[in-house]
Amino acid sequence: MSGASWSDSDKRYLRVACRLARRAAGRTSPNPIVGAVLVRGGRIVGTGFHRFAGGDHAEIVALKHAGPKARGATLYITLEPCNHYGRTPPCTQALIRAGIKEVVCGTRDPNPLVAGQGFRRLRRAGIKVRVGVLENDCRALIESFAKFITRRLPFVTLKLAATLDGKIAAANGDAHWISGEDSRQIVHRMRNAVDAVVVGVGTVKADDPQLTCRIPRGRNPWRIVLDSRLSIPLSARILRQVDPAKTIVATGTRVSAAKTRAIEALGAQVWPLPLKRGKVAWRPLLRKLAASGVVTVMIEGGAGIAASAVKEKIVDKIIFFYAPKILGGDGWAMIERLGIRRVKQSVPVKNLHAMNSGGDLMVTGYL
Amino acid sequence: MSGASWSDSDKRYLRVACRLARRAAGRTSPNPIVGAVLVRGGRIVGTGFHRFAGGDHAEIVALKHAGPKARGATLYITLEPCNHYGRTPPCTQALIRAGIKEVVCGTRDPNPLVAGQGFRRLRRAGIKVRVGVLENDCRALIESFAKFITRRLPFVTLKLAATLDGKIAAANGDAHWISGEDSRQIVHRMRNAVDAVVVGVGTVKADDPQLTCRIPRGRNPWRIVLDSRLSIPLSARILRQVDPAKTIVATGTRVSAAKTRAIEALGAQVWPLPLKRGKVAWRPLLRKLAASGVVTVMIEGGAGIAASAVKEKIVDKIIFFYAPKILGGDGWAMIERLGIRRVKQSVPVKNLHAMNSGGDLMVTGYL
Repeated sequence: MSGASWSDSDKRYLRVACRLARRAAGRTSPNPIVGAVLVRGGRIVGTGFHRFAGGDHAEIVALKHAGPKARGATLYITLEPCNHYGRTPPCTQALIRAGIKEVVCGTRDPNPLVAGQGFRRLRRAGIKVRVGVLENDCRALIESFAKFITRRLPFVTLKLAATLDGKIAAANGDAHWISGEDSRQIVHRMRNAVDAVVVGVGTVKADDPQLTCRIPRGRNPWRIVLDSRLSIPLSARILRQVDPAKTIVATGTRVSAAKTRAIEALGAQVWPLPLKRGKVAWRPLLRKLAASGVVTVMIEGGAGIAASAVKEKIVDKIIFFYAPKILGGDGWAMIERLGIRRVKQSVPVKNLHAMNSGGDLMVTGYL
Repeated sequence: MSGASWSDSDKRYLRVACRLARRAAGRTSPNPIVGAVLVRGGRIVGTGFHRFAGGDHAEIVALKHAGPKARGATLYITLEPCNHYGRTPPCTQALIRAGIKEVVCGTRDPNPLVAGQGFRRLRRAGIKVRVGVLENDCRALIESFAKFITRRLPFVTLKLAATLDGKIAAANGDAHWISGEDSRQIVHRMRNAVDAVVVGVGTVKADDPQLTCRIPRGRNPWRIVLDSRLSIPLSARILRQVDPAKTIVATGTRVSAAKTRAIEALGAQVWPLPLKRGKVAWRPLLRKLAASGVVTVMIEGGAGIAASAVKEKIVDKIIFFYAPKILGGDGWAMIERLGIRRVKQSVPVKNLHAMNSGGDLMVTGYL
């Protein structure tokens, strides 16, 4: 299947399917986002995407949309159709029953319960199956799901905004604003597409952020505050304004019961977790988040949280915004000490990619 | 002339002229680089570029190349032809005499001795003149000359190689290698195209660099070491290997005469200059360099030199290479303290542009 060359129309329809899939970004956890297009006689007769966990899968939406026109059609779909009973019956059955002639698919499902079985079932039923069209794009769509389903840990993105010389705040702690309007808008869109954001209590004290998603029809992510000593001010906006029920204060196990009750009385949750060198340990937190169905986590700083995340090797992806500014050595380093002594021991970043974000640069990479 | 729309062939020929001009990058100081193409009947009949100060100007090279075919031809040229006697007679005369019909030019000459007079002379002789084709590109070709000729100061580029978190060395000072092979190759090409490179004596002590241009047929730039206390080791490779005569140690006025003689005995120069807060002051150094015909200077670090250059506002352009690595807070900041207390006081960078350089990012901007 690899090495095959795909026609322009294969790619065109898959691209439509990818676009459809993205419309539900951040809405389907713990399921992946998936998009589907049904084509017959060179015309699109049905489209669909998976909207939320428990709702119809993308191919079922597309089949319902196409109705009788699905017979003899080709399905273009970003992810392998499932062949198992979950909250919904297997999609393979529905495709076979609808008389689909061919399935052109982006990538196989990393879910061990699927992992090629969907394709096998379709082929056994005489349906032609081709896999790997726009594979990189289709894999990127499900990068967080792939980690979650195989390792039972959320996919973690570290997002920071810094000056060109790597500073996230001026000498006095002032960080308003390092990045430009466009980048801050992108961050709101990112919050709309992740299940949870994480900040340190230092950031809460310094900036008193809301960490909400301020875009039309946006959805606020869970907000996790790392606060080993439960020192968060009860007046923090994150506990008071907009959805306090979606705020989790992750702390140690020996903290004030009264403070815990006071926070809970505001509607937020307090999670007592093991500490590591005095800080909330990342892995137990992430495991607990995964168990709650959180597939994607975005760490938003500060520099100490960023350093502990890199050090404990729990970061999958970085998104660094660089503003066209220089602050110099008085500014605060974007990532605190990692204990690295030599360049050779530095943390390598793969697949570095840069694009413009208004006047800023947005750089992505994988750890 | 602005707002005019240019034909595809205008742009195509000017692009050829730009490419020709760049072939002499770093070879023509204190003159600008210039490229020229002569076209008659839709065919290129002559090309030329200015190779070195004192040599024929680009249009003269192209005229000689074209011979009698120049009559009735159109000249495409990156920069306004000169109308004054310098080391060579005015090019306008030669163009008029050769019977050129039309001149299509990138940009006017910022040299106050030319500044539009070349165009006027040509028009008076009945030659059609159009100005502004690929103007941005043509201005970029002469950005350093434009500063030099109007302000009698070299154009200064600050080049640094850092990790994604803005570190130029690990905790122990180790900087081998922050950037990748491709970026280091680009730096050698940059050295080939600037008149002088500048480093601090700290960099000389730490890395013992040669600061040579290691590309085939490359030319080594002048090497300036900022060394207020004349503490450079006499064993430094910059004083011993490859062209010590092109090394200048910029120092204070109250340094050891014996050390000065020892350095001069190796073939290098020692420039006593005024100090500013114990450091060699930038402006007197740059003025002296300009007086020596140095049009382009590239500062190569370290972080203290970078900071003093930014602080004294003598940097025109930055070129920052970011390697796909994270070093964390133990690493050395790429730019030392600037005394900036608030984000609002940070140094703005204009026209930020990023491109790939092997696995690194190369980011350019203007201060």
